[in-house]
Amino acid sequence: MSGSVDLVTNAVGRRVPTVVNGREQVGFEGIGRYEPRGAKAAPPIRSCRDYPESGDKRVPDLKTALHKCGLRDGMTISTHHHLRNGDAVALMALNAAAELGAKDLMWFPSASFPCHEPVMGLMDRGIVHHIEGSMNGPLGRYCSEGKMRGMGVLRSHGGRWQAIQDGEVHIDIAVIAAPTADPFGNADGSHGPSACGSLGFALADSVYADHVIVVTDNLVPFPCIPWQVQGNNVDFVVEVDSIGDPAKIVSGTTEITRSPDRLLIAEHVARFLKEAGIMRDGFSFQAGAGGIALAFVGFLKELMKETGVKARFVRGGSTTYLVDLLKEGLTDYILDGQTFDLTAVQSIASDARHVATSPFTSYNYHGKGNFASLVDAVVLGATEVDVNFNANVNTHSDGVLLHGIGGWQNCLFSGCTILAVPSFRDRIPVLLDDVTTMTGPGELIDVVATERGIAINPRRTDLLDAVKNSDLPIRPIEEIKDEVEKLMGGPPAKARLTEEPVAVIKWVDGTVLDTVWRIGGS
Amino acid sequence: MSGSVDLVTNAVGRRVPTVVNGREQVGFEGIGRYEPRGAKAAPPIRSCRDYPESGDKRVPDLKTALHKCGLRDGMTISTHHHLRNGDAVALMALNAAAELGAKDLMWFPSASFPCHEPVMGLMDRGIVHHIEGSMNGPLGRYCSEGKMRGMGVLRSHGGRWQAIQDGEVHIDIAVIAAPTADPFGNADGSHGPSACGSLGFALADSVYADHVIVVTDNLVPFPCIPWQVQGNNVDFVVEVDSIGDPAKIVSGTTEITRSPDRLLIAEHVARFLKEAGIMRDGFSFQAGAGGIALAFVGFLKELMKETGVKARFVRGGSTTYLVDLLKEGLTDYILDGQTFDLTAVQSIASDARHVATSPFTSYNYHGKGNFASLVDAVVLGATEVDVNFNANVNTHSDGVLLHGIGGWQNCLFSGCTILAVPSFRDRIPVLLDDVTTMTGPGELIDVVATERGIAINPRRTDLLDAVKNSDLPIRPIEEIKDEVEKLMGGPPAKARLTEEPVAVIKWVDGTVLDTVWRIGGS
Repeated sequence: MSGSVDLVTNAVGRRVPTVVNGREQVGFEGIGRYEPRGAKAAPPIRSCRDYPESGDKRVPDLKTALHKCGLRDGMTISTHHHLRNGDAVALMALNAAAELGAKDLMWFPSASFPCHEPVMGLMDRGIVHHIEGSMNGPLGRYCSEGKMRGMGVLRSHGGRWQAIQDGEVHIDIAVIAAPTADPFGNADGSHGPSACGSLGFALADSVYADHVIVVTDNLVPFPCIPWQVQGNNVDFVVEVDSIGDPAKIVSGTTEITRSPDRLLIAEHVARFLKEAGIMRDGFSFQAGAGGIALAFVGFLKELMKETGVKARFVRGGSTTYLVDLLKEGLTDYILDGQTFDLTAVQSIASDARHVATSPFTSYNYHGKGNFASLVDAVVLGATEVDVNFNANVNTHSDGVLLHGIGGWQNCLFSGCTILAVPSFRDRIPVLLDDVTTMTGPGELIDVVATERGIAINPRRTDLLDAVKNSDLPIRPIEEIKDEVEKLMGGPPAKARLTEEPVAVIKWVDGTVLDTVWRIGGS
Repeated sequence: MSGSVDLVTNAVGRRVPTVVNGREQVGFEGIGRYEPRGAKAAPPIRSCRDYPESGDKRVPDLKTALHKCGLRDGMTISTHHHLRNGDAVALMALNAAAELGAKDLMWFPSASFPCHEPVMGLMDRGIVHHIEGSMNGPLGRYCSEGKMRGMGVLRSHGGRWQAIQDGEVHIDIAVIAAPTADPFGNADGSHGPSACGSLGFALADSVYADHVIVVTDNLVPFPCIPWQVQGNNVDFVVEVDSIGDPAKIVSGTTEITRSPDRLLIAEHVARFLKEAGIMRDGFSFQAGAGGIALAFVGFLKELMKETGVKARFVRGGSTTYLVDLLKEGLTDYILDGQTFDLTAVQSIASDARHVATSPFTSYNYHGKGNFASLVDAVVLGATEVDVNFNANVNTHSDGVLLHGIGGWQNCLFSGCTILAVPSFRDRIPVLLDDVTTMTGPGELIDVVATERGIAINPRRTDLLDAVKNSDLPIRPIEEIKDEVEKLMGGPPAKARLTEEPVAVIKWVDGTVLDTVWRIGGS
């Protein structure tokens, strides 16, 4: 990072840059305060006259495709992360761009994984200028150490759609890894040797990018049915031997936590839903694929069966545990954002009640509503939570960028947002006076469930009333925090951070919620 | 119509207005010649903050919804025609607008039907200024007589998408009749008492309009599955007792022609596909719901069974005859643009191989290709065909506007376009020296099949070669024309038309292909 950066203090007291990667920013103004103006982004008008009448858009390789897309220095190339840590296509695309001599690219993945570590080399060589998108593990540390020439921009899944839709990020070339596709570019994620389930994260890219390349290892004759990505938005199709490592794309099974503390948290959360009256006929919930969330689904399922309650819909990250609910008639539908294990992939491929969604339907805050606020309860994690219920999912207490936002911010709009977290990890308290990085304002976080008790946000007097006669361990958050601090010998050491911003945390409306600072000592 | 209109002569020698309804026009430049510029239309950015968190967008009635959408004089209100002659919603909407005192509206239906005749009264009263969209029967005559204040603009299904997408038509308020919807606005056409099948014609409206109102008589709890219209594009939901007359929305059955002449045409077309080598394993075809087209499907099916040939996909207008092909394993898929009878509605609602398409996937010429050019053969009708294979579907030889374009123009891009027409109707020859109105340039029309012989466009030497040893009655088009003229006592009388344009025929790229002139005597 070069030069000094102007900072402003936003509505939650966080200092944030006024300009990021050359683009002026608006600081977070409060939930629902920022009013967007103007029109959505509009891709160029194309004409069938410039595409093959046969519908066959295949070209021999990614280099040819990128060249035909007019690859130039400074362009933005996007990829999606449905192949997770098994993805081979993002590196193929960036390496092909490198071979073509491109410089200063912006890589715009929906998320990056440890398998993308070689992008550090591409940044060192000047091929990739910076990354906007979640940076996990090594890439996060690279950013935290101030080694990236541009600033990292972390967005939620919905925020990524919003940024593309609103024209904040203009994608020059979208490269879409497709487990199945036809020569016209229709593509689907549920079938083929590299099946990953829904392709929802690639949808905005396909609709808004100037140029779209579909890369597949399972070409089928037109039409590819179903198509989640529409060939009418696609310029070129590239066949490759393999788009990734199936074993890392989906896990064979997803695993419930075995930790007694975490099982206790999961059970508390399930009971809370029942005793607060949220678990009632026709209700809905979202739970991810983490160990606590999976255990929670198991406990909730037992309570639903005991009481004869059925959900209208459940939202995933889908796993075998959600599929079981569907098969046993305990929910009418699964609305699926990403598909985590083989059972879930098979289910979405074959069961019409298991429905692929997209960040547009589920999370985009700049739409005419979205599904997130229709969910009765959501169970999420966090790396830190403070006594004002503000939470952090991006950094740990050392301030190093470690995780993306995912759908986490978007889910906070549910009827009851529950953070299910251990009160400490590796002898470091999770409950604090003030989060290192604010990913979500406490105003939207209703319940923090730990193994030492359940804290309800004082703003939610309705929830406090609903469980006041329960024997659940409802406790003030400060009390739990103090107890943990005593056990751990005090609060965590403050992170040693510089005054140099290396990344920003965007809120769902595109404003800047917080800053990630370069770590000290370099 | 007031004042004089500047005319230019376009690439096919037709005189067309340079300005239509205040908007400058480009005359037809030839197939694939016009190069569009600029970006797609972009609707305003919205925010969840302005929509109910519960997702419940219901308002008591259409008047309330239109008022909340900011209805003003001169606005454009769109509707779709999947409910065909059973539609009650377009009139509901226009009458509600009238009650609110709106004037000078542009009504922009995807098509109008005889049930919409009362719109003439709304035009007489100044509430509707003019119609852009197909005008069948009485509305067509009203336009032909020069009674409409604005000019009619006739577009194909694909051309309507193109016009909306390219910003030629800005929809202020889309009113979408939905056989099933949830309170969030997700909507589907395949279920409910007024089921009509696919809702594809409403899709562009839902995506590009400033304001979107869904009107349903079958509200289901969120989520409405499947959703073809996405609630994230919808502002308001209105419940009504009935959106239309089910008996007129879909027919119980669709009927094959009983005319021996027309059966002969159908048989000729089926045999032509076989003998020209088009009917081969993995082929595709499109046939509509007219009597000859249905009979053609029957004959083709027998030939397919005899020879063991299977189609990859068939395109509809879907009917029980296409569904039979699917059920009998004679096609892998039906790609459905509109759903014509009860069997087809039941099929699209329950069979994953019967897939709803939209004018975007199938017909939009300003996309990155479309499905139309991937279809091996299409069987269409026409009111007139001339010796240069130019064809007319909009007027008869009296020049009165009678029909819309539908998907007809879009389908001309198939591998082999066959017009299956009787050589005369009501003792008026269908084959002419020059069509009254040009809806499609002869360059794209490959075969004209009549009961007196099959004429192949001399441009298609490949087809002429392919059937040269066939015993099909292959004849030059002039010869058939001359024979019919002799039988009928000469060519049809020329239409008595004024020099006053009352409507234009758009080509698929938005250029003006031809003009409909006010009929004489008024």
